[in-house]
Amino acid sequence: MMIQSVQNPKIQRVRALLGKHKERMEQKCFVLEGVRLIEEAMLTGVQPDLLLFSSESTRTLALVEKAKGCGSETEEVKPSVLESVSDTQTSQGLVGIFRIPSLPVPASPDFVLILDGVSDPGNLGTILRTASAAGVQLMILTPGTADVFAPKVVRSAMGAHFYLPIRLLDWTEINALKQNANQQLHFLASTMTGGKSCWESDLKRPIAILIGSEASGISSQAAQLSDEQIHIPMQGKIESLNASTAASILIFEAIRQRTT
Amino acid sequence: MMIQSVQNPKIQRVRALLGKHKERMEQKCFVLEGVRLIEEAMLTGVQPDLLLFSSESTRTLALVEKAKGCGSETEEVKPSVLESVSDTQTSQGLVGIFRIPSLPVPASPDFVLILDGVSDPGNLGTILRTASAAGVQLMILTPGTADVFAPKVVRSAMGAHFYLPIRLLDWTEINALKQNANQQLHFLASTMTGGKSCWESDLKRPIAILIGSEASGISSQAAQLSDEQIHIPMQGKIESLNASTAASILIFEAIRQRTT
Repeated sequence: MMIQSVQNPKIQRVRALLGKHKERMEQKCFVLEGVRLIEEAMLTGVQPDLLLFSSESTRTLALVEKAKGCGSETEEVKPSVLESVSDTQTSQGLVGIFRIPSLPVPASPDFVLILDGVSDPGNLGTILRTASAAGVQLMILTPGTADVFAPKVVRSAMGAHFYLPIRLLDWTEINALKQNANQQLHFLASTMTGGKSCWESDLKRPIAILIGSEASGISSQAAQLSDEQIHIPMQGKIESLNASTAASILIFEAIRQRTT
Repeated sequence: MMIQSVQNPKIQRVRALLGKHKERMEQKCFVLEGVRLIEEAMLTGVQPDLLLFSSESTRTLALVEKAKGCGSETEEVKPSVLESVSDTQTSQGLVGIFRIPSLPVPASPDFVLILDGVSDPGNLGTILRTASAAGVQLMILTPGTADVFAPKVVRSAMGAHFYLPIRLLDWTEINALKQNANQQLHFLASTMTGGKSCWESDLKRPIAILIGSEASGISSQAAQLSDEQIHIPMQGKIESLNASTAASILIFEAIRQRTT
C-alpha cells in the first residue's frame, strides 16, 4: 500500500526532521536524501530507521531490499508526495531517516578541528567533507556553529557524518579535553595575519586547528585557549578567504607536512 | 522624488539584470547588492551606472555622494520596493548596476586557472574569491561553467570580478592562447588520482591549472590540452573534494611553492 497523502504520519515525521532542529535533537534522528548519500551511509554499516522511496530504479530497489533485510521499515510513496516533503530537487525518489551517529573519539587524537561559530550551512558541510577526506580525527563544534544535521549541511558533507566523530562542546568542555588529553594538543588559531604562516608553522605536532566565523573571526574564548596563531599568506587584492576555503587549505597543509 | 513603485523602469531593469543572463549580456551590466560589495567595487575606481538606495546609513550616503560626484545616476527608493527586487536579504538598502569589467590580460601570465564546467554558482564565486586573494593572474571559464555575473556568484566572489581578469573562452581559443603565449604555459589537469601529487608537482613553472566539474571531472577537451595530471592525496574515507575546495588547495600550494 503506497503512501498517498502528505498527511501521512511518516511523511509528517520526515518534514519535521528536515525543518526543525528541536525535532532532530528530540528524536536523535536526521534525514538523508538521494541515492548517493544513502548508499554512502549504508556502506558504513548503518541502516535507516525508515526508508521512503518513489523511484523504481535498480539502485534504489537494491537499497530498499538491503534495508528491509536488516529490519528497517520501508514504504513506497507516491512520487508527488515524496517530492513535496523533500528539501531538495535531487531527492531522486529516496529519503531515509537515520539515527544521529555518535562515533567514538580516538584516545589520543593528533589532528582535531574546532569550528567556532561557522554559521553558513554550506560552509559547515563542505568543511566536514574536506575534514573527512583528509582524515581529521575529531571535529568539535562550539555553540553558535550551524546545526550540523540540518539538510543543507548534510547534503554538502557527502556522508562525512558517518565517518568523522563530531562533538558539540562548550569552551569549558574543550578546555577539559585539552587538559586531559593523553598527549599535549597544540591549539592553533587561524587568523588573518597573526603568528606564523601556515607553511612555517609545525603542523606535524598533535594539533587542534581553530576556525572562527567569517563575520567576526576567532572568539575571545578561542583566543584564550590558543597556544599560537597562524595565518594563510595572501598575495592578491582580496584579503580574506571563505571559512571553508581557509579550513581546507590548513587541513591539507597539515597533511602535506605529515606525509611528504 | 523617491521611487515608490515596483513598476518603475529602473526597478524593472535591476530585476531583469538579476534574473536573466541574456539581459546581462545585452546590457553588458550586472548588479551588486549591499554596502560592503559596492564599497569594495568603488574602491577599485569603478562607478555604478545606477545606484538605488533606501538606507540612510552614513556608509550608504557616503557611497551615494561619491557616485553622484562621479556622474552616476542615483535614486532613493522606498525600502519595501528595493527589498522586493533584491535577490538577497542582505541588500542592506543599497543596489548598484555596474558595467561588466574587462580587465586586461597580462602579457605573460604565469598563473592561470581554467574552470571547465563548474556549474554551482556558490562554488564558482568562492573560487573567484580565492583566486583573487592568491593573486591568480587570469581566470578562464569554458562553456558550461556557471554564469559568472549571476547574483549568487557575485555575492560569493566578494568583489573578485573587479580585480581578476576573467575570460569566457572555448577550447579552440584556449589552445590558441596556449600556443601564442610568450612563455610556455604548463597545463595541469586536476584529477582524483592521476599523475603526481600536487606536493610533488613543480608549480613554480608558468602553469594553467584545469579544474573540472564536480559531477564529471575534467572534460575530454581539457584532457587533450593537458600536459600533465595532478591530484590531491586523500587520507580519509571520503574520496572526493568539492570543486572549490580542490581549487583552493591547488592554488595555495602553488603560492607556497613560489614563496617559501
